[in-house]
Amino acid sequence: MFIRLADLVARFGGQLKGDPRTQVSGFAPLDEAGEGHATFLTNPRLRRQADACRAAVLILSPSDDDRVSAYAGARIVTPNPYAYFAYAAQYFQQLHAAPHVPGIHPSACVDDTARVAGSARIGPHVTVEAHAEIGENCVIDAGCFIGKNARIGAETRLQARVVFHAGCVIGARGEIRSGAVIGSEGFGFANDKGVWVKIPQTGGVVIGDDVQIGANTTIDRGTLSDTIIEDGVKLDNQIQIGHNCRVGAHSAMAGCVGVAGSAIFGRHVTIGGAAMIGGHLTIADGVHVSASSVVQSSIPEKGAYTGFYPLEKHTDWEKTAVVLRNLTALRQRVKELEKTIRLLTETGK
Amino acid sequence: MFIRLADLVARFGGQLKGDPRTQVSGFAPLDEAGEGHATFLTNPRLRRQADACRAAVLILSPSDDDRVSAYAGARIVTPNPYAYFAYAAQYFQQLHAAPHVPGIHPSACVDDTARVAGSARIGPHVTVEAHAEIGENCVIDAGCFIGKNARIGAETRLQARVVFHAGCVIGARGEIRSGAVIGSEGFGFANDKGVWVKIPQTGGVVIGDDVQIGANTTIDRGTLSDTIIEDGVKLDNQIQIGHNCRVGAHSAMAGCVGVAGSAIFGRHVTIGGAAMIGGHLTIADGVHVSASSVVQSSIPEKGAYTGFYPLEKHTDWEKTAVVLRNLTALRQRVKELEKTIRLLTETGK
Amino acid sequence: MFIRLADLVARFGGQLKGDPRTQVSGFAPLDEAGEGHATFLTNPRLRRQADACRAAVLILSPSDDDRVSAYAGARIVTPNPYAYFAYAAQYFQQLHAAPHVPGIHPSACVDDTARVAGSARIGPHVTVEAHAEIGENCVIDAGCFIGKNARIGAETRLQARVVFHAGCVIGARGEIRSGAVIGSEGFGFANDKGVWVKIPQTGGVVIGDDVQIGANTTIDRGTLSDTIIEDGVKLDNQIQIGHNCRVGAHSAMAGCVGVAGSAIFGRHVTIGGAAMIGGHLTIADGVHVSASSVVQSSIPEKGAYTGFYPLEKHTDWEKTAVVLRNLTALRQRVKELEKTIRLLTETGK
Repeated sequence: MFIRLADLVARFGGQLKGDPRTQVSGFAPLDEAGEGHATFLTNPRLRRQADACRAAVLILSPSDDDRVSAYAGARIVTPNPYAYFAYAAQYFQQLHAAPHVPGIHPSACVDDTARVAGSARIGPHVTVEAHAEIGENCVIDAGCFIGKNARIGAETRLQARVVFHAGCVIGARGEIRSGAVIGSEGFGFANDKGVWVKIPQTGGVVIGDDVQIGANTTIDRGTLSDTIIEDGVKLDNQIQIGHNCRVGAHSAMAGCVGVAGSAIFGRHVTIGGAAMIGGHLTIADGVHVSASSVVQSSIPEKGAYTGFYPLEKHTDWEKTAVVLRNLTALRQRVKELEKTIRLLTETGK
Repeated sequence: MFIRLADLVARFGGQLKGDPRTQVSGFAPLDEAGEGHATFLTNPRLRRQADACRAAVLILSPSDDDRVSAYAGARIVTPNPYAYFAYAAQYFQQLHAAPHVPGIHPSACVDDTARVAGSARIGPHVTVEAHAEIGENCVIDAGCFIGKNARIGAETRLQARVVFHAGCVIGARGEIRSGAVIGSEGFGFANDKGVWVKIPQTGGVVIGDDVQIGANTTIDRGTLSDTIIEDGVKLDNQIQIGHNCRVGAHSAMAGCVGVAGSAIFGRHVTIGGAAMIGGHLTIADGVHVSASSVVQSSIPEKGAYTGFYPLEKHTDWEKTAVVLRNLTALRQRVKELEKTIRLLTETGK
Repeated sequence: MFIRLADLVARFGGQLKGDPRTQVSGFAPLDEAGEGHATFLTNPRLRRQADACRAAVLILSPSDDDRVSAYAGARIVTPNPYAYFAYAAQYFQQLHAAPHVPGIHPSACVDDTARVAGSARIGPHVTVEAHAEIGENCVIDAGCFIGKNARIGAETRLQARVVFHAGCVIGARGEIRSGAVIGSEGFGFANDKGVWVKIPQTGGVVIGDDVQIGANTTIDRGTLSDTIIEDGVKLDNQIQIGHNCRVGAHSAMAGCVGVAGSAIFGRHVTIGGAAMIGGHLTIADGVHVSASSVVQSSIPEKGAYTGFYPLEKHTDWEKTAVVLRNLTALRQRVKELEKTIRLLTETGK
């Protein structure tokens, strides 16, 4: 399936420089793209690669357009080439996608009281429990589990083997990837003379529209009230979100992030991979936490925050670690020196 | 389903201050509770919220009882309000729970040689292999896998899509949450001239009574002997326990903790979220490791231990990291200063 | 099933010291092994345990052979006792294994266009989609999902509930453990005025021969080109590999490691548990990264690298953390002292 550049620009905008009749069938990386391929430039360090590129069309920013001179193919100049690539690649993907075939696979176990839209697709070995609702054009892939009274919004897709527990809710156009577990009971225990007593977790998980949840990510249901994931949030793989958290709209977390219970995130927060966020704290709108950083108290102000131990050669680390452990003593020594020097210079006067 | 306060106190103790005929149907958070709700106060910072609370009954400690004066509803005064909440909430949950319906779903594949108690419930698409045993009143939810010779104790519940491998054992009243994998083969390889040679993992996993295991948590089987999880242990989501570990009774680990092979934990150990515990080490009874801390050698003495890099604004972190990497040089400079000062002051005498 | 030591040595080499007719049925740990057991010594600290050992045969190195004098049983002396143990234990495991029974379980849903080798075994509730290929002697355990056009090489085994997405490929003799998700879509989004726009992930995952992938590990498919795992790689549980990574042959990663997108690993790289590797970087052949370390830039040179905060008593850590946060100030104070001292000593001249 080929698209003319004229049609691409008509659909997604941008200034076309080149033959509007040129056709492309999809994207390839800058260094692999050839005839029939679109590609894009976002990283200034790849300008030389762009110069040598043989793609049919190169999507790039005005400033890169000025600097990439040797490249001879067509160009689409746009202020945000990466977003352009995203939209256009989605379009190509839809063109090549197999048609949506609704229906319930005969091996699926769907409770009689569940309401499954006629346009939804339910794969093999899926279980849908009582009073669950599956919206229009949903895809529930093989082996998923949808608990009682759960609600899946229109056009939301659950990949194979997602668990979506009783009473949880997700809005429209969401994607939950394989192995994710939504609405498991959170980690709540009271200690009674050394023995842990379980606190029932009777809240739910409420997920907005356009949310993506990665493979093997877990989001716990709330204790008494709900855990909330707002519209447009993107969660990567193997993330753990504790009970009663609230993740603000359009926030994004990279893989392996852990969030303890009752953490409240503002909107447009971004968390780097494997960062760990403590419980019962608040993170302001627009905060960025670097990968592998540990957040143990609230961050009331927008900005970038970091806290991980820098890597060293192991033998250097061993020495540094010893000094680090004696850092308060080192500071004390500096204090003593300052005192002595003060005395010396005063005496000297 | 409503309960009179008189009945609550008869069942769980505590000193009732208020009308014993008042009725409640369950718990709500301090700031949301209204007529018909119980609530509780454990955090002294919430005393003002308690004063304004409109719950039918407030469970609180004697010292909070003295300080919360404006609240007008009934009170139950007890030394451990959090545990009281846990026990009472469990009771409410049981009252509202759907009745246990035993039976094997027709889509489940249960081997003829497996022994499934008549009172157990086996959900859709479950596989139970040869000679496995499922105890009285167990619930094995949709899509679980129970391997050969595995044994599940009475009243233990496996949520949807748990994998419980061959030969592993769990005691009574346990809970394993969705996506957990018990008894996968551990990471054992010998290196033979640069190539990794697999070491078969022929031990099992032996789990005691009253153990809870979180969603997508993995516990590896032992190499030659067993991995052991003792009674009352609580493991949160996405925890990894390596082969041949032993986790002592009533220990608890928060989400995302990783434990390498052959780590031995005492009793009543608590591990904060995302802490990482090295292998072949021993941790004493009652030790607490803070969230995100790294333990690479044994901890022979009870106490609280911490080791993570404190968070900074990113620009500050960058500067600190440079100094940190040159910390041994900084100490050397302090040493030199001390030497010079010593010479100066001695000369000065 | 017992093996004579003569047969063991004929098969795996080593110098036998003792009665070649002695028989063993398998391995036991040094301190538990008795009549009929083989055991091995690799850790010099366990030499005393070896002296007291009652195994039928002890596998050990020449230097340990000289030092272990009290042990009275047979010995096999070999330069790499751990690899010897691995090979011999594999052999014992095969002897005791249930015979491979090919066939497709009636509850499995295998598309008519899928090509499943006659010698392969497909367990209950497995889904195999269109045009997928399952090689000779493969075992696809209960509840696995194999997407469209996926290819599983000969003698590869997928444990219960593995997800292997469309178009992904694994070679021969691989093992993927329960809950692993191969070929989920990676975390790719462009930001368009504060809203995340999904970038379709149309590459695949290509895995070589003799690869092992742990329980609940996730490997994302590439964006435009493939994510690649080369021959002989061993990945432990709960590892996350981002899109477009390449892991070089015979590399190994311990549990809970996270790898961001487009990280390129050389051959024979070893990564300790819970280490976090940033994206778009390169790690040289033979590099070792310690457990819990954070790698945020390329490592061009072979060696051992470490970077985690050393554990302290919590009260000590609190003090150290304060000094650490003011480390640049401390360095400034040392600088000032050096300056003053220089002035003093110059004045003193």
